[in-house]
Amino acid sequence: MFRRVAIAGMGLIGGSLGLALRGRRLAGEVVGIVRRPATAVEAVSAGAADDAGLDPALVSGADLLVLAAPILACETLLADLAPHLSPGCLVTDVGSTKERLMRTLPPLLPPGCDFVGGHPMAGSEKGGVAAARADLFEGAVWVLTRGPQTPDEAVARLAQLTRALGATPVEMEPHLHDDAVARISHLPHIVAAALAEAAGDGSVPADVLRLLVAGGFRTTTRIAASSPEMWRDICLTNRDAALAALSDCESALARFRSALEAADSDGLLAAFQRGKAVRDSLLPPE
Amino acid sequence: MFRRVAIAGMGLIGGSLGLALRGRRLAGEVVGIVRRPATAVEAVSAGAADDAGLDPALVSGADLLVLAAPILACETLLADLAPHLSPGCLVTDVGSTKERLMRTLPPLLPPGCDFVGGHPMAGSEKGGVAAARADLFEGAVWVLTRGPQTPDEAVARLAQLTRALGATPVEMEPHLHDDAVARISHLPHIVAAALAEAAGDGSVPADVLRLLVAGGFRTTTRIAASSPEMWRDICLTNRDAALAALSDCESALARFRSALEAADSDGLLAAFQRGKAVRDSLLPPE
Repeated sequence: MFRRVAIAGMGLIGGSLGLALRGRRLAGEVVGIVRRPATAVEAVSAGAADDAGLDPALVSGADLLVLAAPILACETLLADLAPHLSPGCLVTDVGSTKERLMRTLPPLLPPGCDFVGGHPMAGSEKGGVAAARADLFEGAVWVLTRGPQTPDEAVARLAQLTRALGATPVEMEPHLHDDAVARISHLPHIVAAALAEAAGDGSVPADVLRLLVAGGFRTTTRIAASSPEMWRDICLTNRDAALAALSDCESALARFRSALEAADSDGLLAAFQRGKAVRDSLLPPE
Repeated sequence: MFRRVAIAGMGLIGGSLGLALRGRRLAGEVVGIVRRPATAVEAVSAGAADDAGLDPALVSGADLLVLAAPILACETLLADLAPHLSPGCLVTDVGSTKERLMRTLPPLLPPGCDFVGGHPMAGSEKGGVAAARADLFEGAVWVLTRGPQTPDEAVARLAQLTRALGATPVEMEPHLHDDAVARISHLPHIVAAALAEAAGDGSVPADVLRLLVAGGFRTTTRIAASSPEMWRDICLTNRDAALAALSDCESALARFRSALEAADSDGLLAAFQRGKAVRDSLLPPE
């Protein structure tokens, strides 16, 4: 499907993409562009790339470049790689927020290269190429975003690739995407961290908590184990939407507080019912 | 181990207990005492009880009575059953909070019967005998609480039973138990509901959310699908501890809010790091 795919950033997403492209023979060759020599060795020995290194010139000859670096690093990274891009190269990213990158990345491209934004809705609280899996994208939605200059053909080509990876491409406005992920991804990460922090404030000894910790805490705080750096950067690129979502969550908690303070049985029931109604409407029972 | 075990309340916990007692041959017979005839039929046909019905006199002859009804129903229930208890019957409960029940239940018993509080740290967001599983308690911690009148021998007898069910008995002060579960169980249920509610406020169309909903939201809100009635009642019996835990969570969220508002990268990182540190200290990586 592609002659030479360059993946800049070989973490969980970049590494999984490399494994999947090679495993499904969707690329003639896959090269990884990384920041540390050890990651290059790790990526190649894991089978995530045919070749990997630190040199931006590795991108030469690629007909697809995927930016899979931490979100705030993508701008500098693309500026470094752009001079080495071959004409006609399709460029995409996998960033968790889209509005900012759709503003900043396309102007960095040389003429003749097209940009399509991307966000595979797949991940894990574990990071790094060691956690990469060839099947990470199977069954996932892969959001695609276009700018005013993006030709239909570039979107269609990337959509075809995501389908070949087992994902479902969905084109969406960057702003709508960012509002939605603020509520179904960024806010949950903030809340999971706050919930874990509230358990660990010292009012109950850690050994007692460790003994009693059960399913509720385990699942609710699972994503609090994610990379703090990654989630800081994602939230910083989506501040307005994250703050709006956080406000709604704070209001919902304030209603729980009022009901608890007043021992208001009906109010407390209604609060739990509202949460259950949304959860049940968005996801089938597990 | 017991001649005749009466289980009052045949939901997820009572039903699972019946299945486990019968499957492991820990009781000569298991009788279920329920509120609705349909539940009696369901419990017997599921194999959770040898016999079941609505008559409180079914408790006669039992050497163990387990109260497995909704927490706020336990007091009335035990008052109804007490006149039919045989001398020497050991009585326990499975309520999710312990302080209140340790105050209200023991005085209802006739002389010659002992009370030991219990809380198996096992459950599911699904309720009812249909969701019951014989292995529900395997590997779970089973908290035991005693009152001033409880003889050592009664605690030892119940501890032995929980071990035979594959659980680990842990004796604990009711107050400490309630403080701990407020943070690792009650607060997570409140927060999961608030998080789901914040997603469903209408600012993002439900079909977009449904499309993008990924692992983070799925796990973080899983327990929001639980019974609103059950969690209302549990929280009402542990208001002070739940409010204290909620305050700490609200403070943690306020720190996220300040950092986001100020685009304070270090503050935001520190907030995510605090959550991760607690999560990692309480639970191994999954």
